[in-house]
Amino acid sequence: MNSTNPLILVVNDDGINAPGIQALATVAQEFGEVVVVAPDKPQSGMGHAITLDSTLHLKEISIDGVKAFSCSGTPVDCVKIAVNKLLERKPDLIVSGINHGSNSSINVIYSGTMSAALEGSLEGIPSIGFSLLNHSIEADFTASKHYARKIIKQLLESNSTKNLCLNVNIPNLKTDLIAGIKICRQAKGNWEENYDERTDPMGRKYYWLTGKFVLEDEGTDTDEWALANNYVSVVPVQPDVTDYTILKDLKSLENE
Amino acid sequence: MNSTNPLILVVNDDGINAPGIQALATVAQEFGEVVVVAPDKPQSGMGHAITLDSTLHLKEISIDGVKAFSCSGTPVDCVKIAVNKLLERKPDLIVSGINHGSNSSINVIYSGTMSAALEGSLEGIPSIGFSLLNHSIEADFTASKHYARKIIKQLLESNSTKNLCLNVNIPNLKTDLIAGIKICRQAKGNWEENYDERTDPMGRKYYWLTGKFVLEDEGTDTDEWALANNYVSVVPVQPDVTDYTILKDLKSLENE
Repeated sequence: MNSTNPLILVVNDDGINAPGIQALATVAQEFGEVVVVAPDKPQSGMGHAITLDSTLHLKEISIDGVKAFSCSGTPVDCVKIAVNKLLERKPDLIVSGINHGSNSSINVIYSGTMSAALEGSLEGIPSIGFSLLNHSIEADFTASKHYARKIIKQLLESNSTKNLCLNVNIPNLKTDLIAGIKICRQAKGNWEENYDERTDPMGRKYYWLTGKFVLEDEGTDTDEWALANNYVSVVPVQPDVTDYTILKDLKSLENE
Repeated sequence: MNSTNPLILVVNDDGINAPGIQALATVAQEFGEVVVVAPDKPQSGMGHAITLDSTLHLKEISIDGVKAFSCSGTPVDCVKIAVNKLLERKPDLIVSGINHGSNSSINVIYSGTMSAALEGSLEGIPSIGFSLLNHSIEADFTASKHYARKIIKQLLESNSTKNLCLNVNIPNLKTDLIAGIKICRQAKGNWEENYDERTDPMGRKYYWLTGKFVLEDEGTDTDEWALANNYVSVVPVQPDVTDYTILKDLKSLENE
């Protein structure tokens, strides 16, 4: 790390106008030079989407005096174009969020916030995604900022590997009610979807996605357990999705 | 599995008009009842994106006599709405593709084809993504169909777990030049991006994403090795992205 004046890239998926990214940029400024590159509109649930068949547009703005760019693309596009085009030097750290809503358990794979952080680590830059368990635009980010500060500080002071990626979720509680930090694995869980079917004024059907999260994991070493017990959950994340447990069982397919 | 008349859902990310999905639907029909639900436009690189802030629209059409729906959403939306709204019974199998282009190595996380397959397995349905190493609209799917047939047959005949998800990549070769099937792990690799900067007629800059894949893995047990040696690569995929190798190293964060 360049400890004299670290460069910190701040991204998110809720869009450049979300209160969460302003909270995170404020914390990041305590540690070095900050540049914000974030989607020009909300991009929740964009997963690891990238813009392949279309062009990207950037607009330079300023957020409370911080250099910032709004980007027409996805959260992952923001990281790629920031690192490979916009920034004059490689960032020392990428922070994503603070997301308005949880990215624990299976939510990590749908999350633009976490996909941006994972993309950062793929670029060889330690990256952290922060999410607060409160969807509201008026969420109180005080405790989130407190823990973001602690975790960013330790990461910048340590020699963390350049591919480090952390998924940090913060309970929706006052700072003094949070029990501390737990290092966890991703809980097994899933969404049970329901589609709300409606009819438009022209008589055509359309659908809204709704659903509820179902926890399928009784472990006490998971992010869901930590959050339910008032801890900040920290799950290290990596991009290899191979199911190593069944590689051997599948060998019979090779004889087909 | 319902071996008397399996229901097979066919999805993709290249859109309902892509030749690859027609090739896959043709093969699937040999094994049971087929329903196609696919994006109404190309959705390559959409990763695990879902439509949260907008509505979904479906249009019933027919592809060579096969029941089919075009969907305004992403590949993952197609799986969710098919399983949770459209289909009268749970599919016995979901097949995604045949993608025009590789989804080996790190491409799996950007791929709409593979995200749709992973979503299928999250719904508790064995799912397979097929990709041919040829981006062309005029690609020859003969060998891909041959191997899709073999793998679908074995899966339907076995008692595969309901969460099975396979990432199948097929070399761009004539069938008799393919060396067979290899069960593999996901190779470590990455994209080095470049942004092609242009100026529109109004004098504003815009950007096209370009890049080249860099293999960072010398293993002979990977999908990249298998494909380079003329094998069909089969990687089992699962959704837990926890980096178990560094859980212990991070424990010091708990004391912050």
